[in-house]
Amino acid sequence: MVTVLKLGGSVITDKDEPETADRVAISRAAQSIESALREGSSLVIVHGGGSFGHHHAARHGVSTESGTHDSTQVCAIHRAMCELNEIVLDGLHEKAVDAVPVRPLSVASRSQSAAVTFPVTQLQRMLAEGFTPVIPGDVIVHETKGATVLSGDTIVVDIAQSLDADRVGLCSTVPGVLDRNDEVVPEINRYGDVAEILGESESTDVTGGMAGKIKRLLALDVPASVFDLDSLDTFLDTGQAGTVVR
Amino acid sequence: MVTVLKLGGSVITDKDEPETADRVAISRAAQSIESALREGSSLVIVHGGGSFGHHHAARHGVSTESGTHDSTQVCAIHRAMCELNEIVLDGLHEKAVDAVPVRPLSVASRSQSAAVTFPVTQLQRMLAEGFTPVIPGDVIVHETKGATVLSGDTIVVDIAQSLDADRVGLCSTVPGVLDRNDEVVPEINRYGDVAEILGESESTDVTGGMAGKIKRLLALDVPASVFDLDSLDTFLDTGQAGTVVR
Repeated sequence: MVTVLKLGGSVITDKDEPETADRVAISRAAQSIESALREGSSLVIVHGGGSFGHHHAARHGVSTESGTHDSTQVCAIHRAMCELNEIVLDGLHEKAVDAVPVRPLSVASRSQSAAVTFPVTQLQRMLAEGFTPVIPGDVIVHETKGATVLSGDTIVVDIAQSLDADRVGLCSTVPGVLDRNDEVVPEINRYGDVAEILGESESTDVTGGMAGKIKRLLALDVPASVFDLDSLDTFLDTGQAGTVVR
Repeated sequence: MVTVLKLGGSVITDKDEPETADRVAISRAAQSIESALREGSSLVIVHGGGSFGHHHAARHGVSTESGTHDSTQVCAIHRAMCELNEIVLDGLHEKAVDAVPVRPLSVASRSQSAAVTFPVTQLQRMLAEGFTPVIPGDVIVHETKGATVLSGDTIVVDIAQSLDADRVGLCSTVPGVLDRNDEVVPEINRYGDVAEILGESESTDVTGGMAGKIKRLLALDVPASVFDLDSLDTFLDTGQAGTVVR
């Protein structure tokens, strides 16, 4: 049973303050993850950039579509993401989770048509050895464009397919997709059903807000849940929470 | 024309002092690399751990054969290697080389029989986009053993084959393989010819000394040179220097 869990950048950082991690939120998530691992789950953790990656990317005009050939810009964005990744690793180690980093720049790349290549043999072997891989959103090389942003959401969908994951969860700052009355929509099967209620997220986010998340999750073969930190235990226990996209 | 160049750990660090980089040597190498790139070469740089990785690995009893399942040990070794990798990247950026990091822990792994899997699509795309990948020796996941050391020398041989490299160079602290009279052996074709004169390197080195290097290089389809920093320009200009192993 493999679960791919994304911790949203806005969950683990203050998106409006540059390079500020929310260590309390990370510690809470780490506690839930440790419990799930103790129950026998295999987890791959993906996390967004929040206030670490997005500001660097925006400053250099780098997005998922607009690239750079300047390696000092690539490294500035990458180092910011690695810094947040180290804080997440530390938070997991403090709860005795055997977390190890996997940085997309080192392994993944995009073709000219933006198709992502992300080999996963190392992830499969990490899981088999009892390690929990922790993968940040990152900047990766992109044919003809130099290097572009690879969002955590795209990583989730790509590796969930490659690993034939059983469960996918996106832990966000909202308890699910909200309707006009701020009630959680329990299930989404088609994008058209929720297109009108999906706006853009409020802070700087070069990787797209809730609308992009839902579109990507609908392409998955397995059900995916969108929920908040209060429901992380429920998701890890039952495999679903908040809004279920299938 | 793809060249795989290894900068030995003992060239870029003081192997007898923990975590001490030799920034002068790194700067000299970076200058030579920048000149070669300006002449149209494509280069993949691999570097050893020297005083950064080896001490951490030795302290935790981790080698190429003896592994650990403790992620804090994995991360301690990995962070030390990343720290040296960052110093090498900085030295290359100072000479305007568009260097980007590729960390083996994120991409490579070993099977139970110790066969290395190291996908290279990202390296090929980096080279095509004008980036110079810089790959440190590292700790990688290893089936049944947790995580073991992947030496720079093993990386060189593995990726030279995967990338179908045209040239391979190992920049060491010695001008080549030395015979009993301390003269450089110009060419080696069989291990048996030099077995007696090859000793072990003097400092702590969990990844094997010159004997291991020569054995691995003899397995390559392309000629490989072993030389020192004084001959790096010669190697990059002509494709051979010091001792040529073929």
